[in-house]
Amino acid sequence: MGTSRLETFADGVFAIAATLLILNVRVDPSRCPALSCQILHAWPSYVAYTVSFITMGIIWLNHHNVMRQIARADRTFLMITIVFLMIVAFIPFPTELVAEHIGGTFDDAQAATVLYGITLTLTAVVFNIVWFYAVRGGRLLREDADPRVVRGISRTFVFGPWTYLALTIISVASPTVGAIGFALFALFWVIESSVFGRDRISEPSEA
Amino acid sequence: MGTSRLETFADGVFAIAATLLILNVRVDPSRCPALSCQILHAWPSYVAYTVSFITMGIIWLNHHNVMRQIARADRTFLMITIVFLMIVAFIPFPTELVAEHIGGTFDDAQAATVLYGITLTLTAVVFNIVWFYAVRGGRLLREDADPRVVRGISRTFVFGPWTYLALTIISVASPTVGAIGFALFALFWVIESSVFGRDRISEPSEA
Amino acid sequence: MGTSRLETFADGVFAIAATLLILNVRVDPSRCPALSCQILHAWPSYVAYTVSFITMGIIWLNHHNVMRQIARADRTFLMITIVFLMIVAFIPFPTELVAEHIGGTFDDAQAATVLYGITLTLTAVVFNIVWFYAVRGGRLLREDADPRVVRGISRTFVFGPWTYLALTIISVASPTVGAIGFALFALFWVIESSVFGRDRISEPSEA
Amino acid sequence: MGTSRLETFADGVFAIAATLLILNVRVDPSRCPALSCQILHAWPSYVAYTVSFITMGIIWLNHHNVMRQIARADRTFLMITIVFLMIVAFIPFPTELVAEHIGGTFDDAQAATVLYGITLTLTAVVFNIVWFYAVRGGRLLREDADPRVVRGISRTFVFGPWTYLALTIISVASPTVGAIGFALFALFWVIESSVFGRDRISEPSEA
Repeated sequence: MGTSRLETFADGVFAIAATLLILNVRVDPSRCPALSCQILHAWPSYVAYTVSFITMGIIWLNHHNVMRQIARADRTFLMITIVFLMIVAFIPFPTELVAEHIGGTFDDAQAATVLYGITLTLTAVVFNIVWFYAVRGGRLLREDADPRVVRGISRTFVFGPWTYLALTIISVASPTVGAIGFALFALFWVIESSVFGRDRISEPSEA
Repeated sequence: MGTSRLETFADGVFAIAATLLILNVRVDPSRCPALSCQILHAWPSYVAYTVSFITMGIIWLNHHNVMRQIARADRTFLMITIVFLMIVAFIPFPTELVAEHIGGTFDDAQAATVLYGITLTLTAVVFNIVWFYAVRGGRLLREDADPRVVRGISRTFVFGPWTYLALTIISVASPTVGAIGFALFALFWVIESSVFGRDRISEPSEA
Repeated sequence: MGTSRLETFADGVFAIAATLLILNVRVDPSRCPALSCQILHAWPSYVAYTVSFITMGIIWLNHHNVMRQIARADRTFLMITIVFLMIVAFIPFPTELVAEHIGGTFDDAQAATVLYGITLTLTAVVFNIVWFYAVRGGRLLREDADPRVVRGISRTFVFGPWTYLALTIISVASPTVGAIGFALFALFWVIESSVFGRDRISEPSEA
Repeated sequence: MGTSRLETFADGVFAIAATLLILNVRVDPSRCPALSCQILHAWPSYVAYTVSFITMGIIWLNHHNVMRQIARADRTFLMITIVFLMIVAFIPFPTELVAEHIGGTFDDAQAATVLYGITLTLTAVVFNIVWFYAVRGGRLLREDADPRVVRGISRTFVFGPWTYLALTIISVASPTVGAIGFALFALFWVIESSVFGRDRISEPSEA
């Protein structure tokens, strides 16, 4: 089975899940009477929108890289990818909770950021399963896949779950520091790509 | 008429309908004051999200299999497919009702799970119509379609409506058992694919 | 300019607009205490969902037919298509109003069905502009477009606006009869395609 | 890396973001008792829907033009495009605020239109970055890109940010004039394309 229809479906889920994030950006009229004041006070939802959109964009970009090394899909691979996309499409839910509660009580901010961290950790874990299932024994790889690129993806992907797990644990201790961590991690990839990504056509980055 | 634009449209509806499920995952602030408690009490909506996403993913996967056996589409086939997609896109509605009412009164849980079951039974029935319309007399099949694969799809698809009908009837007697049945049926396909799906490139599974 | 990316964009808008219709299907807890009763009373929203989904599916199918006759797109054609898609994507709004108000007062039912009719009339008018812009002088047609198919589309498309305009005027006099008219018109195309569409690969149907 | 999957993703975001605009078109039952009156009073949301849909359609159309000149994508280009799409997907939020507040107090109308203007200015700025990153030194251009077309796009794109910035500044002084300006600017491109766009296959228009 070729992978083109799988990519269409995956691209659809990524594009929709990322675009749906905007539905959670809204002003709260009960906050203050003037719209300008409401717009300013909604800043956590802009930050949450930006961080989750960029994070999902990077995951999409890496999924892109992964699929370029893969020649075919068997049923197991398709099923794992569906589970992966299910977790990606879940991201808007904790994103909204973080935006709403990061400025609230410690306990609520903690609950929101920890759920956000668990979701991203799970995303990274299942993305690793997607990748290593395809790679093991060259099962689904293209004949002409560059071994260095494959090793490069494998090496980088392993860090994803640990980084998100670490940020999740940090969120338990300090939701604010955790939230800043998630933002900085997304920002890191933007800068890394912008500065070092020129002319690198096939380097992987993040799980 | 080729089938590529039909597949783009179908992939779009599947991807959107599955991703829209997340809009029905929310916490209920009236339930308890702490967000952590609200997040825990929202577990039925996570389960409902997972079961419906996986179920729609499996239907997409099987639609994928079906389209690979088909070379062309006539107007009747396109129209039946539109009706099929209409029912698939309806799934988020009963999913939300089940998530909201499975923990409520017996009557409400019954109404929600029965509607869920009717929707999935209809999906499976119309999916069978899609398939058998294309197959009858080899009408729309590819010249080189493998007869064993075609017979395999036909044999497996026939079970879909009966399974969902049985689970619907069970939901009348016990909504909880019915809901667990829908979840186990989705789980069954995930495990079946994960364990037995390796290297099986073109086996069908569920209607 | 080829038309493939235009088709991707159009398919996306059609798939999303049709799938978004489900967001307007909901039960009204203030109606009656039992969920089963709420589900039954929500029948106008199921009918509205079905009629609009089928109508949009038929428009998509005809857009499909149109694009198969067209070899290239100029800026004017792209712009007209964007306006066309804008009106298609508007359909969920009057659909919701009809579902909500068809069982209400005469005046509200009238306002809702007339807006629904105006939207579909506009859709059909702009679809005609899309088609006749492409056809006039063979401007954007494929070299090998079958003249009989082209004349067939032209002949059938002309009826679309008049039919919807007639149903709109009927809705002024009787919203119920008008609403039934929109439903029957969609049903007509389903049956017409199901009964007569076999093996007709490229016949047009509705504007 | 080829650009086809990037285009699928971009087309998805454009199609979804534009189609989601309809979710913000609704009547306000607290406004007046009759539905017909509510429908008439909702006119700012129809205008906002139209202006933003057309604006996003034009941006999509120009993105189309840009991608036709580009042969490949490196990581930096993909990352800039993700940021660009993130801002495009943000447009529905200020659109809703303008629709809701343009008929309100001066201060609220000002806040809404200025936010709308900032969003479109940012869109145009990042679109310029997308374009000039690809063009500089012919980095990602096709070998056979027509230099006149490339210069044409470069020349036109530069105006985008300044026009939107000017309209944003006008919105500070008079939100009504600013809002009319955004509408006229979209209308200008529709007319420009409709009248002058015939047979111009590859001319750029707006950033």
